[in-house]
Amino acid sequence: MSKSKISVKNGNVSLGKGCKIHRTAILGMASPRKKSAGRLGIGRGAIVRSGAVIYGNTTIGDGLETGHNAVIREENKIGDNFNIWNNSVIDYGCTIGNNVKVHSNVYVAQYTALEDGVFLAPGVTIANDPHPGCSFSKKCMRGPTIKKGARIGVNSTILPFVVIGKNCLVGAGSVVTKNIPAGSVAYGNPARVCGKVSELVCDKGITDRPYPDRGNK
Amino acid sequence: MSKSKISVKNGNVSLGKGCKIHRTAILGMASPRKKSAGRLGIGRGAIVRSGAVIYGNTTIGDGLETGHNAVIREENKIGDNFNIWNNSVIDYGCTIGNNVKVHSNVYVAQYTALEDGVFLAPGVTIANDPHPGCSFSKKCMRGPTIKKGARIGVNSTILPFVVIGKNCLVGAGSVVTKNIPAGSVAYGNPARVCGKVSELVCDKGITDRPYPDRGNK
Amino acid sequence: MSKSKISVKNGNVSLGKGCKIHRTAILGMASPRKKSAGRLGIGRGAIVRSGAVIYGNTTIGDGLETGHNAVIREENKIGDNFNIWNNSVIDYGCTIGNNVKVHSNVYVAQYTALEDGVFLAPGVTIANDPHPGCSFSKKCMRGPTIKKGARIGVNSTILPFVVIGKNCLVGAGSVVTKNIPAGSVAYGNPARVCGKVSELVCDKGITDRPYPDRGNK
Repeated sequence: MSKSKISVKNGNVSLGKGCKIHRTAILGMASPRKKSAGRLGIGRGAIVRSGAVIYGNTTIGDGLETGHNAVIREENKIGDNFNIWNNSVIDYGCTIGNNVKVHSNVYVAQYTALEDGVFLAPGVTIANDPHPGCSFSKKCMRGPTIKKGARIGVNSTILPFVVIGKNCLVGAGSVVTKNIPAGSVAYGNPARVCGKVSELVCDKGITDRPYPDRGNK
Repeated sequence: MSKSKISVKNGNVSLGKGCKIHRTAILGMASPRKKSAGRLGIGRGAIVRSGAVIYGNTTIGDGLETGHNAVIREENKIGDNFNIWNNSVIDYGCTIGNNVKVHSNVYVAQYTALEDGVFLAPGVTIANDPHPGCSFSKKCMRGPTIKKGARIGVNSTILPFVVIGKNCLVGAGSVVTKNIPAGSVAYGNPARVCGKVSELVCDKGITDRPYPDRGNK
Repeated sequence: MSKSKISVKNGNVSLGKGCKIHRTAILGMASPRKKSAGRLGIGRGAIVRSGAVIYGNTTIGDGLETGHNAVIREENKIGDNFNIWNNSVIDYGCTIGNNVKVHSNVYVAQYTALEDGVFLAPGVTIANDPHPGCSFSKKCMRGPTIKKGARIGVNSTILPFVVIGKNCLVGAGSVVTKNIPAGSVAYGNPARVCGKVSELVCDKGITDRPYPDRGNK
């Protein structure tokens, strides 16, 4: 890990103890949407890797860890132990809980809510605009809400306004166009519910069932 | 916004008035396909953010704005007010009109045509090669043509040679394998036409209909 | 091409003759998974472009060429003439043969095997975890095996444990959930075999058939 000096812009950045910020990372970037960058607050023990950029007017808890070239925009509220891997983007105005993991090459649209423990696998892409490019679309932009503990498989697409319930598992390559009830397994384009997480079987024989501590709650 | 010095390589770059180029951006890069980089011309008021790379032998109009780590290759002709967000790539040999917006994590293949006002949402991926890796494929490589005002939803895939008509709307997560007539709404894998943009309803009640100034023209 | 000084960290990097490493590239990065970075060995004639990061404890043959911002993690064994384009990620623990090409915005999961001559088109995303976030998942993580000469179309998704046979062609936007026999053409979500590579026709009239030197072998 690169231990390095801090690249703070404009004096608008406050960092907790023990942060390691790579010298090519940028903190407290100003948005083109705003006249001033606003304050960026990051808790203790953050690791921000090369090429990552975090904008001002955002608050992030303890234990942040970013991959290379990740971008986190302004007006985000992010909890503790947030992990975001290489080349992923969190657009502005999102609410992100504790222990959320966003893997590589992911795009999280403006005004998305990711609750505690959510996992977005590589390539997940989130939309927030039912009619992109409509001249009224700033009035109706809203990302999906992904509830506590839900996990979204690689390269899945999640549409605006959708609610993915607690502890759901969305299969790889899915396109989620409608709400998914808590505890469901869903996949396909469009994604359809095909079972319950509590009924999944481990076909590798490692455990009685995967997610032993999670069910259809 | 980072106001910064210009990172010009080889003296082959000309910039219009009022450009802001981040110090880690690279302009006028030479392609491995060519002996010399060739000239890069960029119009007035460009904003090129950290980590972005723009190759030589490319011409871009006024009002360019790039996100972080965007890459624009050689032999591209790009109009005014081109926006390209974080981590997106424009490969070589494309023709791009005015007021085109390419969002994050997008890949635009060689020899793609994007007409005026086209919008590519995050994660859109464009192909140009009907038989990838065929030893003849350099003779038939051609990207799609996306006509004036068409909008492509998040994480959609567009196949080579396809023509997407004027003002079309392609839904999220689609795989477009055939031409789409002007003014159509299409989605799915493979994408099928399912209606007209002029007949879309705003289910948020904000307007009589989205895209009031665009129809099936 | 940027001819530049070498950015070697910790003295743990050995490079063959004639390598060109951009000054913003990072070689020999330590993984957060390990106490020490371990040795990174790269053969002759490598080109590593701006923003790329290659971790320690990895071995790469001659003729490496990376795009901008590509990331190659630790514990990878990679052959000669490996090409990886912009913004793509090779996660740890993969085995990659000779003459493999990984295009832009691709994610290759831990413990994936890519045999000689494999081509991954832009946006391909690979999974390795049947039950992401399961507390036992470290015991069953395994990426797919993509056999010699297989080519995967743009924005396709490949599931864990899947074997894609020799010389297969997977169509754009596919979701591959099951093994594909050698020499097959397959596409769709989920991907289904729909023919043989040896029976493909060149509808551009350039050749009798694409891939003249490859069949259902």
